[in-house]
Amino acid sequence: MRRTSLSGSPCPVARALDAIGDWWSLLIIRDAFDGVRRFNDFQKSLGVSRGILTTRLQALVALRILRCAPASDGSAYLEYILTQKGLDLFPVVVTLRQWGEGHCFGRGEQHSVLVENETGRPVGRVEVRSEDGQLLAASGTSVKKLRIAPLAIKRSKGPARLRVD
Amino acid sequence: MRRTSLSGSPCPVARALDAIGDWWSLLIIRDAFDGVRRFNDFQKSLGVSRGILTTRLQALVALRILRCAPASDGSAYLEYILTQKGLDLFPVVVTLRQWGEGHCFGRGEQHSVLVENETGRPVGRVEVRSEDGQLLAASGTSVKKLRIAPLAIKRSKGPARLRVD
Repeated sequence: MRRTSLSGSPCPVARALDAIGDWWSLLIIRDAFDGVRRFNDFQKSLGVSRGILTTRLQALVALRILRCAPASDGSAYLEYILTQKGLDLFPVVVTLRQWGEGHCFGRGEQHSVLVENETGRPVGRVEVRSEDGQLLAASGTSVKKLRIAPLAIKRSKGPARLRVD
Repeated sequence: MRRTSLSGSPCPVARALDAIGDWWSLLIIRDAFDGVRRFNDFQKSLGVSRGILTTRLQALVALRILRCAPASDGSAYLEYILTQKGLDLFPVVVTLRQWGEGHCFGRGEQHSVLVENETGRPVGRVEVRSEDGQLLAASGTSVKKLRIAPLAIKRSKGPARLRVD
């Protein structure tokens, strides 16, 4: 279905979308964060065909976002568990949630809420900040692309400098 | 192509994905954050067919994530500009980027970098925190779903309480 692969792109957003930028995959990951572990439970939650679900689960395992494990209750079921790579998607799911809360519900329309277990209070707003904690708007940032050859960049340029880790 | 619409889901993640959970849409939004405004420039950046790009741009305008405007240089071109709803996707794009940086590049492989204009330094790590600033892991949170009828929930349950705004 995809005409282009972004897996070799120098842009981390593109590579991330290549891995998970698919409606079903992100909903599976959302459910996994919500404690869903078994094929039938994913299917019940998502209302998706077994074929699509099988394909997506296999892809997420191949990408090491989920791993397979024997059922925690000793039964014969297979469980799908988030790996560390999968757990690291938590901020992605939360920012999607917060944007959805703000822009995809009518006034007074209720929605599910992500709360802190300890206090029962909604989690805080996820924000983009500078290294020293200042709130950053998109207009205060820019993407330094790789087509700027690192060796051609003068240190004196400051903001235009490409950081190569 | 989609078999299900998530636009009526009580889950904000699902509604957000219904709007933007599509590879091309999120790449268009990424490019818009990066200053791209014109059809031909989106096409050049994305290497996507004119048909797909037209459909996605129209959908993003219909969703009020982008708006159309006359060209800023007085020429006859139409420009696509992020609305406030679109600008509010900044944390989504940044968390996708940071996950991609951490998990989709090989050791030593270079990638583009999002920097703060003022200092030229990479933006900070985007994290999920409680309302009072404590760092939260996914395991420290849970989703309070709407199928729990608000009136049936006892306040004494604390963490299981549904907050209805």
